[in-house]
Amino acid sequence: LSELPRPLEELAAALARLPGVGRRSAQRIAFHLARASKSEADHLARQITGLREALRICEICGHLSEKERCAICSDARRDSSTICVVEQAENLFAIERTGAFRGTYHVLGGAISPLRSIGPDDLRVDELLARVETGDVREVVLATNPTVEGEATALFLARLLRARGIAVTRPATGLPVGGDLEYVDGVTLGRAFEARRDVLDEDAGE
Amino acid sequence: LSELPRPLEELAAALARLPGVGRRSAQRIAFHLARASKSEADHLARQITGLREALRICEICGHLSEKERCAICSDARRDSSTICVVEQAENLFAIERTGAFRGTYHVLGGAISPLRSIGPDDLRVDELLARVETGDVREVVLATNPTVEGEATALFLARLLRARGIAVTRPATGLPVGGDLEYVDGVTLGRAFEARRDVLDEDAGE
Repeated sequence: LSELPRPLEELAAALARLPGVGRRSAQRIAFHLARASKSEADHLARQITGLREALRICEICGHLSEKERCAICSDARRDSSTICVVEQAENLFAIERTGAFRGTYHVLGGAISPLRSIGPDDLRVDELLARVETGDVREVVLATNPTVEGEATALFLARLLRARGIAVTRPATGLPVGGDLEYVDGVTLGRAFEARRDVLDEDAGE
Repeated sequence: LSELPRPLEELAAALARLPGVGRRSAQRIAFHLARASKSEADHLARQITGLREALRICEICGHLSEKERCAICSDARRDSSTICVVEQAENLFAIERTGAFRGTYHVLGGAISPLRSIGPDDLRVDELLARVETGDVREVVLATNPTVEGEATALFLARLLRARGIAVTRPATGLPVGGDLEYVDGVTLGRAFEARRDVLDEDAGE
């Protein structure tokens, strides 16, 4: 059997380490780049190298930004008394796309994970506490991922924040809107039942 | 709504143009690269830039290679009297992985496509005819893709090659082995019925 030429194989291996790129997909991309024009390949390489230089971390919330303060932290219309804590910047964009939140954010840079040796000191926890201690923060929404690590991180932060007299909330878990009961995983369905709400109550709240 | 910072947006747009990378996936990769270490990002960029310099086109078959002749064309154990014509180098690897072919290859560099203004002169057709005219080629297997463009290219090449007294074959189309009739597309199923074989015949052939 013929092997891939070494430079192609090495590029494919590097691409396969990117999130969401499988081995086959990585090979297809490597072949594509081998055939691409010099300007297309060079342009992509320059964008990758330049990304770190063009982006910085917002000094307030830790979000990716071209300036010292990100677009959200410098927007006076955003409610700075409510801080939504997320693990990564991409989670922030997912929430922004819903349009359901008008406060500000705090990007932790990950979740606490003993297995991967990530502790609170590796995350932007001190920066969050410093923001909270300035005094005008009333509520912190802990929107870490609904995973074991995200839940543990939320619990850890909730204790620290409640001790400082801050209201701490977490987005509801439950059935996905528009989904089919049959396709909902057991844990989600179980939690949705535990957290079931009175129908009249729900109507009254709307 | 907050937009992605411009450098991230631009990289995501470039990544989304790669084969098999959707918009969401491109954004995830861009975020990953924004957080990656400088050495990881620079290494990937260098691999992309270096690919074109490290690879050349095999002078015989058009395959990607680090040397003037690819590993297959320089392997004396390969049967050079049988040439398998493929559109792109990745198709060649797909065939190599089966282990079902021990001849040599010819990479066209694409398929004839009037819609995309790709004619025979844009492909390595003259090089194929030159190889055939050296005299020791007996059979050409036209393994272009089973698409409209691949079929048209195979038909075009078959006429040129038969006029030169060469045996021209094409891999069989039919039901995928291990597949379920219910999930086979109608065109494939229809062709599989048209090309149905006598069961005793097939047994005898084994």
